[in-house]
Amino acid sequence: MAEEFVHELRVRYGECDPQGIVFNANYLLYCDVAFTELWREAVGPWQDMVSRGYDAVVARAELDFRAPARNDEVLSLPARVVRLGSTAITTEIDVMRGAELLVAMRARHVCVATETWEKTDVPAFVREGLGRFLVDETQTA
Amino acid sequence: MAEEFVHELRVRYGECDPQGIVFNANYLLYCDVAFTELWREAVGPWQDMVSRGYDAVVARAELDFRAPARNDEVLSLPARVVRLGSTAITTEIDVMRGAELLVAMRARHVCVATETWEKTDVPAFVREGLGRFLVDETQTA
Amino acid sequence: MAEEFVHELRVRYGECDPQGIVFNANYLLYCDVAFTELWREAVGPWQDMVSRGYDAVVARAELDFRAPARNDEVLSLPARVVRLGSTAITTEIDVMRGAELLVAMRARHVCVATETWEKTDVPAFVREGLGRFLVDETQTA
Amino acid sequence: MAEEFVHELRVRYGECDPQGIVFNANYLLYCDVAFTELWREAVGPWQDMVSRGYDAVVARAELDFRAPARNDEVLSLPARVVRLGSTAITTEIDVMRGAELLVAMRARHVCVATETWEKTDVPAFVREGLGRFLVDETQTA
Repeated sequence: MAEEFVHELRVRYGECDPQGIVFNANYLLYCDVAFTELWREAVGPWQDMVSRGYDAVVARAELDFRAPARNDEVLSLPARVVRLGSTAITTEIDVMRGAELLVAMRARHVCVATETWEKTDVPAFVREGLGRFLVDETQTA
Repeated sequence: MAEEFVHELRVRYGECDPQGIVFNANYLLYCDVAFTELWREAVGPWQDMVSRGYDAVVARAELDFRAPARNDEVLSLPARVVRLGSTAITTEIDVMRGAELLVAMRARHVCVATETWEKTDVPAFVREGLGRFLVDETQTA
Repeated sequence: MAEEFVHELRVRYGECDPQGIVFNANYLLYCDVAFTELWREAVGPWQDMVSRGYDAVVARAELDFRAPARNDEVLSLPARVVRLGSTAITTEIDVMRGAELLVAMRARHVCVATETWEKTDVPAFVREGLGRFLVDETQTA
Repeated sequence: MAEEFVHELRVRYGECDPQGIVFNANYLLYCDVAFTELWREAVGPWQDMVSRGYDAVVARAELDFRAPARNDEVLSLPARVVRLGSTAITTEIDVMRGAELLVAMRARHVCVATETWEKTDVPAFVREGLGRFLVDETQTA
């Protein structure tokens, strides 16, 4: 049974566009923030991993925009790991306003060695930490 | 035979992250810029369409990150329409450094009426303009 | 005796530049966030004021950069009103890491009527709310 | 007699806020872009200087907001050096829409050695290059 993780943030005025809604690229920024916080909870501060010689880079991102978020709204971003491959980590992060799903995001990160910047196996301490937030993907449809 | 459209831009320092590369969310910003310029070439300034009672919102975006762009690099962003549905427009926008594909993006916009903010048919003047940049999707693999 | 107000925020990765520090323009974004939160505490949500026919626009900003903030750091931003003129509001907002002053900012906002977008007197409910956070400027050197 | 330098840019949709105008922090981003282009013209690509062991950091910025820029407008940003001190460089950059001054910015950069990150004298090749764009400050009021 996966642990639940939710990050909360408040929409900033400068993140909204002339339509009065969050500019689409900023959801990818939110995604990065929520992923960082999930990582902190699961593994520790991102920089600790980098100090140990590992980093992770985004290989793919998908965003489905259902409804807009507006200035000053407090949003909740539940995040879960849906696949822990040998070198890749797939997460799903939703942007919710209360019970309403605004944007559904899915990102695949690839683990790299900071020395060579080459793809490398997800190290055990990362795998163990993220494993607590791994959901059976067949349940997440 | 589709017309070709390419937008060029230079990476700004403030768009790069501590890894020295363009922060991932900023590619979605680049995508929006290139889409706006494609629109200008195909249909006219975005605001003209809004004045006529139509707008378009992003419904879905996909980004494949192959290699990073760096500060101060001049990038070219070829953009093409790959599907012109009744209410939706799908475009593919690449981020290239010379002949190297760095990021492949695909976005689906939906046409809305500015009065009701409801989905509406792509108006004829938009369809006609974008049609010049419509490629047969089976050729775009 | 002025009430104290401090807003806290964590530096986001995407706000940092290739030097690994917060990109200079983002301090002005932080300034806007802290000002909005000061306003919430003093007057209420910004949008409430707009609904009552008033808005405020930045007329001048000054930033002194003493030391850089880094990724993932939690910063505190004490904010205070240093002048409450007839139509203008001057605030000072510091960016602190613990006891260390990183950036000192000063902003002057001007009150406008949303209908005409013309300069107007700071309304009583704003003046009263902000007054609680007004320090005697001669003490703030 | 100083050479003239003007950088042009088009306002991006994502840089505008719910008031439909450029978000205030983005003028500081524009300032950085124009400064980088002035540098390219005067000295060469920024990175060349860094390769030679020098960098420059912003120590102070002032912005006077007179009128807003709007989405899709093409702005011109004349930039000039107003003071070339031993370790500091002061520039003035305006944001113009045609002949109308929208925002007047003034920035002071300090030269640092990349090895120690300590303040250092502006090197001769920078001084020489920027000197061509140095105006007598008494004329710039």
